[in-house]
Amino acid sequence: MQVELLSVGTELLLGQIVDTNAAYLAGKLSELGVNVYHKTTVGDNAERLAAALRICLGRSDVVLATGGLGPTKDDITAAVVAQVMGVRLIEDEASSAKIRAFARERGIQLLDSLLKQAVVPEGAQVVPNPVGTAPGFILARESKTAIALPGVPTEMRAMTEQTVLPYLGQRAEAEGNKSVIFSRVLRVAGIGESQAEAELADLIEQQTNPTIAPYAKTYEVHLRVTAKAANRREAEALIAPVEAEIRRRMGDHVYGADEETLEAIIGGMLTSAGLTLAVAESCTGGLIGHRITNVPGSSEYFLAGLTTYSNESKIKLLGVGEDTLAAHGAVSRETAREMARGVSRAASADIGLSVTGIAGPTGGTSAKPVGLVYLGRSDESGAVTEEVRLRGDRLMIKERAAQLALFLLYRGLKARQEGAG
Amino acid sequence: MQVELLSVGTELLLGQIVDTNAAYLAGKLSELGVNVYHKTTVGDNAERLAAALRICLGRSDVVLATGGLGPTKDDITAAVVAQVMGVRLIEDEASSAKIRAFARERGIQLLDSLLKQAVVPEGAQVVPNPVGTAPGFILARESKTAIALPGVPTEMRAMTEQTVLPYLGQRAEAEGNKSVIFSRVLRVAGIGESQAEAELADLIEQQTNPTIAPYAKTYEVHLRVTAKAANRREAEALIAPVEAEIRRRMGDHVYGADEETLEAIIGGMLTSAGLTLAVAESCTGGLIGHRITNVPGSSEYFLAGLTTYSNESKIKLLGVGEDTLAAHGAVSRETAREMARGVSRAASADIGLSVTGIAGPTGGTSAKPVGLVYLGRSDESGAVTEEVRLRGDRLMIKERAAQLALFLLYRGLKARQEGAG
Repeated sequence: MQVELLSVGTELLLGQIVDTNAAYLAGKLSELGVNVYHKTTVGDNAERLAAALRICLGRSDVVLATGGLGPTKDDITAAVVAQVMGVRLIEDEASSAKIRAFARERGIQLLDSLLKQAVVPEGAQVVPNPVGTAPGFILARESKTAIALPGVPTEMRAMTEQTVLPYLGQRAEAEGNKSVIFSRVLRVAGIGESQAEAELADLIEQQTNPTIAPYAKTYEVHLRVTAKAANRREAEALIAPVEAEIRRRMGDHVYGADEETLEAIIGGMLTSAGLTLAVAESCTGGLIGHRITNVPGSSEYFLAGLTTYSNESKIKLLGVGEDTLAAHGAVSRETAREMARGVSRAASADIGLSVTGIAGPTGGTSAKPVGLVYLGRSDESGAVTEEVRLRGDRLMIKERAAQLALFLLYRGLKARQEGAG
Repeated sequence: MQVELLSVGTELLLGQIVDTNAAYLAGKLSELGVNVYHKTTVGDNAERLAAALRICLGRSDVVLATGGLGPTKDDITAAVVAQVMGVRLIEDEASSAKIRAFARERGIQLLDSLLKQAVVPEGAQVVPNPVGTAPGFILARESKTAIALPGVPTEMRAMTEQTVLPYLGQRAEAEGNKSVIFSRVLRVAGIGESQAEAELADLIEQQTNPTIAPYAKTYEVHLRVTAKAANRREAEALIAPVEAEIRRRMGDHVYGADEETLEAIIGGMLTSAGLTLAVAESCTGGLIGHRITNVPGSSEYFLAGLTTYSNESKIKLLGVGEDTLAAHGAVSRETAREMARGVSRAASADIGLSVTGIAGPTGGTSAKPVGLVYLGRSDESGAVTEEVRLRGDRLMIKERAAQLALFLLYRGLKARQEGAG
């Protein structure tokens, strides 16, 4: 089965947004072992969209279109798909009922434009949208299939995972599609891409199936191990020994795999140890708390986050000593230590985590340059601190500092597990 | 002149990298006033690349291809372009001399694969590569032109700016194409895409130059006003009255333009009014503080952020009444009010901002469902609160709640400005 991707939206052709949907879908389809040979982008223009759709359907079995399903006049995907595939448009009653309920709940006017989203090609299977109002659809006619999803990434992803991938997976299986490409991503914190690559150079060189490819993310490295095999189980069997060797070499730097975030892993460790956490932030401004609370259920272990941006708030809210600030400054090992201790005390938490640093672009000196960050972790056995020097713009420094603080916390929890084990 | 983009590379079809080159080129071309109606991606396969190239050259004047010019066997763009356009491949001597010098300087072996990069279609204008070894080329045959650049973003960008844009700009001018496309983005908070569109429906309908297009972002709406004119000044003159009319209709909902974020605008307002801010967060977990501190210089007005995730921390750190929590619950108007007051008191700030709500996926009840959020703002003149009901997953609810809290703060600062004015 050949699937191709069609991104619809003039904003993509004006360079106003980067098409991350296509990369996401391409990755998911290759995991299914589906061949994706083409990806096309057209604007919100009926004639050109119809022409592109005809080209796509001419050479592939399935066209997966994203974008152009919203409420505005520019949103023409459903109409063009119906026209090219020779069917009428009809109102999907379940979808329009959902939109009516949505408008009623929020007390907003039930505009025609909202209801337009419930219109789909006749005979199409509706793809429910669990996080928005515009449904998608799957329209199969003779040997060709058009799938349409909204362009909003969160909606597109939810609908892909819930409906489209199971649908395509079933079709691929029914067609006897016997090879899959399967990847496992090992998530690495605390070292950079070139260091990771150097430690694995011989492995990367020798491996052909699976292959190993390092990717630098803003604040961590992902090692993608990709195998091609008859099915997922065989692919996993090819990957397992390579993964074990990577983990052996990189130790605790490999903190998780695939979609596991550092904050989710930490959440699991805190929960199973029955420990609570409080965070004192300065240069990260609340980002660590934001990441920790992105994990569902984090209210079980996260008691409070105190972002003490001013010296006064460090003194008053965290009990950092005035003499400490006077002698060492707000950006210092000593302040980081007192912040970690202070926040665990203020929030009555088992563990305190702290960050203080200079995110820039101003505020740096030759002794304390932009990017200098101190991290602290405190628990019943004492406090540890770390000095790191980070590169990048303000946001990158914040993101990297938050990641290293979480990594410091992770290592503490890991050592505790091993001590207990 | 119509230009289209062709990205070459199997890694793009496997979803391993996001195609940022295409977005960059599309943006640059639209600034030149060049129409880009199509963008295509194919893998490193000669047959499919040739077929795609024929489709592109059939409908556009110029095809701008990126990728597939490197040293490996997979790099086939030069050969396929030559074949499709009916010319031979020749060695470009300036390029091979440069590659030889490069290898000599670095003491690396002069492999055939390195020299392969100097091979270009006969009759092509070579596009020098100031930051790498692979040159690009511009091949014009009859009325059609193929341009090929390497896929490495730094190389592609340097070559585009140095050679390709001047070339296309000259051609556009020679063809009497004297127009540029210029856009202004008006940033809208506090209302949804369909409501924004409804208020502007007649304008959107009537306008042809400039056009008005609404785009839904995760937590705000962008109205893109795009004009085509002989030069940027004329485009801006076309946009000005339309912008004024949009602002008249939408009032304070239009909080900024282009790259101005809500947090940056708030920062400017706080600075010019000489006011300080403290934030009490619950369901947003620190995200509001993170956004506020993304603005350089925010340490001038942001004193502290207290993320009080537990009831105990709300009582202890913010002074929320135990009786308030018992009578109304943590997610209530009353708690939001006491949190805003409490945080401004705790941090000695002029203004307190608060959020408390249920981000889900669990923790909702029929009386207080997931997505129910209360916002509070407190200053010397008193406190205001708002109830909102948000949709989406946990992260979306956090992002939308943070945005609405910032918008509540923005409106308070705006009213203060107008009161003072």
